[in-house]
Amino acid sequence: MILEMVKSEGISHNSYVIGSKGELAVIDPRRDVDIYLELSRKYDSAIRYIFETHRNEDYTVGSLELASRVDAEILHGPHMDFKYGNAVIDGDSFDLGSLELEVMETPGHTMESITLVVRDKDISNDVYLVFTGDVIFAGEVGRVDFFGESKTPSMAELLYNSIHQKILPLGDNVLIYPAHGAGSVCGADIREQEFTTIGYEKKTNPLLQLKKEEFIQHKVEEKLYTPPYFSKMEENNQKGAPLLGCLPESNPLNPEELVDLMKNEVQVVDIRKPTSFGGGHIPRTLNIWKEGFPAYSGYFLNYEDPIVIIDDNEGHIPEVVRYLVRLGYDNIYGHLSGGFPSWYMAAQMVGQLDMWSVHHLKDVMEKEEDIFLLDVRKVNDYEKFRIAGSHHIWVGDLPHKINEVPRNKKVVVYCDSGYKSTTACSILKNDGYDDVSSVLGSMGAWLNASYPVIK
Amino acid sequence: MILEMVKSEGISHNSYVIGSKGELAVIDPRRDVDIYLELSRKYDSAIRYIFETHRNEDYTVGSLELASRVDAEILHGPHMDFKYGNAVIDGDSFDLGSLELEVMETPGHTMESITLVVRDKDISNDVYLVFTGDVIFAGEVGRVDFFGESKTPSMAELLYNSIHQKILPLGDNVLIYPAHGAGSVCGADIREQEFTTIGYEKKTNPLLQLKKEEFIQHKVEEKLYTPPYFSKMEENNQKGAPLLGCLPESNPLNPEELVDLMKNEVQVVDIRKPTSFGGGHIPRTLNIWKEGFPAYSGYFLNYEDPIVIIDDNEGHIPEVVRYLVRLGYDNIYGHLSGGFPSWYMAAQMVGQLDMWSVHHLKDVMEKEEDIFLLDVRKVNDYEKFRIAGSHHIWVGDLPHKINEVPRNKKVVVYCDSGYKSTTACSILKNDGYDDVSSVLGSMGAWLNASYPVIK
Amino acid sequence: MILEMVKSEGISHNSYVIGSKGELAVIDPRRDVDIYLELSRKYDSAIRYIFETHRNEDYTVGSLELASRVDAEILHGPHMDFKYGNAVIDGDSFDLGSLELEVMETPGHTMESITLVVRDKDISNDVYLVFTGDVIFAGEVGRVDFFGESKTPSMAELLYNSIHQKILPLGDNVLIYPAHGAGSVCGADIREQEFTTIGYEKKTNPLLQLKKEEFIQHKVEEKLYTPPYFSKMEENNQKGAPLLGCLPESNPLNPEELVDLMKNEVQVVDIRKPTSFGGGHIPRTLNIWKEGFPAYSGYFLNYEDPIVIIDDNEGHIPEVVRYLVRLGYDNIYGHLSGGFPSWYMAAQMVGQLDMWSVHHLKDVMEKEEDIFLLDVRKVNDYEKFRIAGSHHIWVGDLPHKINEVPRNKKVVVYCDSGYKSTTACSILKNDGYDDVSSVLGSMGAWLNASYPVIK
Amino acid sequence: MILEMVKSEGISHNSYVIGSKGELAVIDPRRDVDIYLELSRKYDSAIRYIFETHRNEDYTVGSLELASRVDAEILHGPHMDFKYGNAVIDGDSFDLGSLELEVMETPGHTMESITLVVRDKDISNDVYLVFTGDVIFAGEVGRVDFFGESKTPSMAELLYNSIHQKILPLGDNVLIYPAHGAGSVCGADIREQEFTTIGYEKKTNPLLQLKKEEFIQHKVEEKLYTPPYFSKMEENNQKGAPLLGCLPESNPLNPEELVDLMKNEVQVVDIRKPTSFGGGHIPRTLNIWKEGFPAYSGYFLNYEDPIVIIDDNEGHIPEVVRYLVRLGYDNIYGHLSGGFPSWYMAAQMVGQLDMWSVHHLKDVMEKEEDIFLLDVRKVNDYEKFRIAGSHHIWVGDLPHKINEVPRNKKVVVYCDSGYKSTTACSILKNDGYDDVSSVLGSMGAWLNASYPVIK
Repeated sequence: MILEMVKSEGISHNSYVIGSKGELAVIDPRRDVDIYLELSRKYDSAIRYIFETHRNEDYTVGSLELASRVDAEILHGPHMDFKYGNAVIDGDSFDLGSLELEVMETPGHTMESITLVVRDKDISNDVYLVFTGDVIFAGEVGRVDFFGESKTPSMAELLYNSIHQKILPLGDNVLIYPAHGAGSVCGADIREQEFTTIGYEKKTNPLLQLKKEEFIQHKVEEKLYTPPYFSKMEENNQKGAPLLGCLPESNPLNPEELVDLMKNEVQVVDIRKPTSFGGGHIPRTLNIWKEGFPAYSGYFLNYEDPIVIIDDNEGHIPEVVRYLVRLGYDNIYGHLSGGFPSWYMAAQMVGQLDMWSVHHLKDVMEKEEDIFLLDVRKVNDYEKFRIAGSHHIWVGDLPHKINEVPRNKKVVVYCDSGYKSTTACSILKNDGYDDVSSVLGSMGAWLNASYPVIK
Repeated sequence: MILEMVKSEGISHNSYVIGSKGELAVIDPRRDVDIYLELSRKYDSAIRYIFETHRNEDYTVGSLELASRVDAEILHGPHMDFKYGNAVIDGDSFDLGSLELEVMETPGHTMESITLVVRDKDISNDVYLVFTGDVIFAGEVGRVDFFGESKTPSMAELLYNSIHQKILPLGDNVLIYPAHGAGSVCGADIREQEFTTIGYEKKTNPLLQLKKEEFIQHKVEEKLYTPPYFSKMEENNQKGAPLLGCLPESNPLNPEELVDLMKNEVQVVDIRKPTSFGGGHIPRTLNIWKEGFPAYSGYFLNYEDPIVIIDDNEGHIPEVVRYLVRLGYDNIYGHLSGGFPSWYMAAQMVGQLDMWSVHHLKDVMEKEEDIFLLDVRKVNDYEKFRIAGSHHIWVGDLPHKINEVPRNKKVVVYCDSGYKSTTACSILKNDGYDDVSSVLGSMGAWLNASYPVIK
Repeated sequence: MILEMVKSEGISHNSYVIGSKGELAVIDPRRDVDIYLELSRKYDSAIRYIFETHRNEDYTVGSLELASRVDAEILHGPHMDFKYGNAVIDGDSFDLGSLELEVMETPGHTMESITLVVRDKDISNDVYLVFTGDVIFAGEVGRVDFFGESKTPSMAELLYNSIHQKILPLGDNVLIYPAHGAGSVCGADIREQEFTTIGYEKKTNPLLQLKKEEFIQHKVEEKLYTPPYFSKMEENNQKGAPLLGCLPESNPLNPEELVDLMKNEVQVVDIRKPTSFGGGHIPRTLNIWKEGFPAYSGYFLNYEDPIVIIDDNEGHIPEVVRYLVRLGYDNIYGHLSGGFPSWYMAAQMVGQLDMWSVHHLKDVMEKEEDIFLLDVRKVNDYEKFRIAGSHHIWVGDLPHKINEVPRNKKVVVYCDSGYKSTTACSILKNDGYDDVSSVLGSMGAWLNASYPVIK
Repeated sequence: MILEMVKSEGISHNSYVIGSKGELAVIDPRRDVDIYLELSRKYDSAIRYIFETHRNEDYTVGSLELASRVDAEILHGPHMDFKYGNAVIDGDSFDLGSLELEVMETPGHTMESITLVVRDKDISNDVYLVFTGDVIFAGEVGRVDFFGESKTPSMAELLYNSIHQKILPLGDNVLIYPAHGAGSVCGADIREQEFTTIGYEKKTNPLLQLKKEEFIQHKVEEKLYTPPYFSKMEENNQKGAPLLGCLPESNPLNPEELVDLMKNEVQVVDIRKPTSFGGGHIPRTLNIWKEGFPAYSGYFLNYEDPIVIIDDNEGHIPEVVRYLVRLGYDNIYGHLSGGFPSWYMAAQMVGQLDMWSVHHLKDVMEKEEDIFLLDVRKVNDYEKFRIAGSHHIWVGDLPHKINEVPRNKKVVVYCDSGYKSTTACSILKNDGYDDVSSVLGSMGAWLNASYPVIK
């Protein structure tokens, strides 16, 4: 049996290649499909089927892209007006060599969600593994809030039933391969485990310990963020995104070309780390550190204005191009050739940002200096505990809530570890705030220093 | 949690790297340890422990080699007089970040066999996975025949108890990561599955369906081969093999140098496929196809005479050097530069071997020509079914049973697919048999052609 | 200064990436343009210009393909009705950072041939290197026979003048970077040197020692082959070949699918070495060894029927796909999954070919057996020396001269080293010749054995 | 002909692999010899000879290391009491396939310097290329100041004679492959050209335009720096450095381990860029940006105390380990696991450094603020032009000239581009200077801003 997990970092998305005896299926492919073609070559096997466990919201699915390169059928659940592919229903089954993939409808996260149940007939008729899409994750279950507040309870009930009546009865030994890992916005609190088993989840998944009513109540009360780019993804994934062919190239720009470009609407994103951005950056640029780019760019970037990337010449541009492609951003324009050093070598203006240590923050607070302390973590985390005196705006909400931040005070921003806070600072500075600082290490370092929090 | 399986093809050996939060352990490392150092760098984590699940017989373990490169403690089971490392006993436990590795003694395959039981304390106290070494595999259990016929029943009972009293009670959901996959000589009939679960094995592993007496009976009757190199491995793994440092280089030899070398004792092995070997080869060389090299060279190569490799200039030499190193062969000498073509271009003598199709064999048999049909498969397979009129010698036994093959007849050799039969033909030709042929596809093709077999 | 030679093996084509300070030009790009994009990323530099030294005949140029991926201008010589790009003339110059590329018209190989003269202005105004296209090579000069016999003398004179009046006067120190290396069909006898200098060529290039009349005479008498695919290349390169986007995928086929496919018109090519092909092959397939594929497939493959590749499962398929793409073959269909072994394992019919050693050939000749000895080397080589009694047909001419080979005799084929002879044997067998043999090592081994040749 | 240049970045060292027909020689190998073994495998050729063009001063030569892995003879010039290898003299010649390597003694840089003159006998007896070691470079000639001021004139004369009487007469067409490229300390002003020709140097190399007396005068007046590690290299290269075997591993350390380690003598080097170091760093650490590490670490690191590397978790550690190994630093200890972020996340103390833009420096100077402006460029560059009011100390001299810097003033440091100035700032801060700033872009940006300099 061939089984390969393809992880898309940042969006914590898992797609899968499964197969046997020269035949493969791909589950939930991403849009940069070269990895599946490589695996097809590695195993010298033909991709026969492309399954979508549901219409994804957090990335552009690569089904059409992959089907344009190989001779494979696209399959997804019923109850959704897809503009491509074919619908499968409960009980449909597909053979790949000795494997049988059986469709099990498991609505809840969405109506058309399916779970794929896999048996190896050369061994036995027992179920070996399931691909659960966004129904159940390691330590979590899927979101049910995409259809409006009024629908949440009924979707939650559907999800509960899908899990308890369809998935769990398959047996404790069955392997669970979910569509997302830790860090995904598709589940509140997914654990850092690549896969799990039904039995292990029954023992350890807190959501599986709840009775149906408790479960529904929990889901109704859950506070989750929905990045604005989700609506574009839903459109892409229902209608089919434009075909890419090869991955786009980013133009290397020299500083003069970038200066010219910045005279018009352009989205310049600095992907360096907080300390680098603090030490020097191009004024009026947005900072989203590279690893956070997939998860956070969808809050801030639009789909029209050209996107330009600033790095430190570390060869990361092709990786960021992939991140953008996965989120459907086809308005990639270029990057600063030579990275940020080529900017200041050209004697262009340089901005800086104060990076505070937690010790400095503690000192300032003890001196009762008049600062506006801004916490940009998730509201759930803020509600659990926070630094006394802090105000809260989720970093993703900052652009449209920016007026909640006073313009006449020193603004000090913290988050979990100092990355999102630096993003927030770059947004504030772009909006004209001059006296802003980001806290290195933020809450993580604050707690490690044993400084006090309130709950 | 970090978990990486490192597969050594050919010997179907699995070693593992497991860890969390900057700390790693390596389970049953192979002797070419660069892969573990790479993983240590990839995860930027320190290797703290090296575990041996038992004293291995089928390859030279890399514990000492790895410990010479990093600061790690070597640990193995008790009841064996190891000349290096420290013994652990039932209940000992080791922390790696949030993981706990607990030692469970599981004798049977050997007396000092241990299973490592892994929990992720950040999640729960429930067992997540076990490393079972050679105790249980996907669809199989370990061998118990290494201590002589008289000990086999008692070892089998120990194994039964280890499995049924210690491993299976851990719970159906627990993942099993064994030390071997399909094709290993350490289990008769391991399935092609990288890992499994306790529950899945309980349902599908035929050995787990047996009662204790049946199980012991089965193990007593089991016919398994023990390649002669096992004794060298046991010595290496008890005393500690010589340290390698970097992997050895193979000298590129030109045809003249090889001709000179072959005037003395030298082991020249042609690693090309049967069709290539058939089409032309250096006379008096042993053919073991590359993929079969790890599993079969231990039957035929000694540890003294220099080893020289013949390939077709496809860049496989470093891979074969690794194979040799894993089996403790430090007498690697060189390879023919440019591969076999450089031999015949130098106008050296060329041997050939008749490759028969199964259709030709069928024709010959129907014409009742007088041939000696030799089956070199495992005796178990021969006993299940065979081509009528065939004689049996296991390929590994051929060197010392060669006189069972008549010298005055055309000898036609078949095996499962035509690879081992070509090895056998090369052995026969080296011994002076002139009229030998190998059957392409052998039993596999014979069956696909629906030709008759007897049972 | 950035200077990278990109070699396309088999057609012995050299393209170049040259540049400085963030700007690059590509000279004579091949059609699989990913390597140029990689170099653009490696040097973080923008491709500004794409130069064609002339309309190539032996491969499909990648100018349009590359220009579809980056923002670059295509430039080529005048006097040719190109359907894309812009013409440059003698004295035009282009800046890339500190480099200046000056156009020098150097007709002779073709009318629109140009040489690019490169100076590094940061160093001096002295010429540093020239890209000479097909005008001059290491030890050779370009062909002048593409415009018909009547034009050959005048083209030869043009070439002589281009070399002697324009290139050589640039100075002995100037580096020459030609468009082809050893083995190319674009020059009779190019040396194995990646590049050379004007001074070294003046001393060592035999063609540069000739007076104009001698030179023209030599070119008129030169016997060169023009593979039939050249006409397709000329069309592609004048009009612009279809855009590829990503490289095409080859479908993995199982034996049953291949059997079905072979019921219709299909071109099945076995890319294995002679010994492998001899040991066993699919009947009625063409053998062109992988390294010879780029140079020889253009003689035998058409542009309509689907092409299927047979290998030994060594991962060479993507490489062969590139070879085909470079020759404009967009009718790539698939390959046998698992390689030739999957064919015989499926109990399909297997063909074989006798591989003779030179010693066996010598024996047979001494016994005066009645064979038809066929030499398929270039006619020039045959005229220099040959085995007594041999007949000559150039391998590329064999399909349309096949009736010169008697059908009632054993046919023994030799070439330079036994590769082309095996190709020839596969052609003969496909045409119904049954008793054919190929000589391993052929003339090379024959000479190394000190066997006699006649002149 | 095989010819591969192996570049060691940072020290701008070129070694070479040259060969033909299965035989190779390596010229001036570096100490991490894996690349030569890879090339030997790539070309399937045996390394027969290892040449040293002279006893190197700027890196530890890998001759013994390489000879411990393959069967090759080490050869170097006469007139030096080497403790390993064999001496060659003028006129000695060595064959490699069709190549002939002839030894030409070319003293001047050192007494035992040799040039290797290469001919391809298959082509002609004309010289094709020379390996000139440190005798002549692109646009430069070798240093002659290693033997004390009194010997400089006579060494300069020897060098002049070697160049004019031995190398230049070989002919304008001859290719020159030198041992160093741009940036090396072994030549004052080497051009950015990988190789050159004798004719091109005759036209463009300013040193070749000088008459003998002018040349000697120039060499006598030349001001060059000799890093302190050179004496260790000379010892290593005369006696033979310790054998490494595999490259050493760097231990991943967590912050607590590093804190403990820093209680004793340890050399902690931060290899991040100036902006990163400015934004936050571990107090009392030395900053040498990664690309500058090979050229500058030899000024500051000793060979006894353990060395620990701080990066930003970008995977650069193995590269820096190579840099250290090349300079003979076998006291590599470890690196901070997770990079600098793991330090501040652990709530450890964080230092910062003011990074000034050139515009800010201009402002401050116009306001006539009382700063100590320190120029740490090479004295030659300082003498050519500088910012008015600046003081000069070469960065490499700063540790022992630090008391020339006032402790009661704001110190602002500039260099060529802001990298060396940040190194200097880290040295000052380690010595207790608190108010120090580094100028981003430094002189490069200052000139690009068209700000005034004095000469």
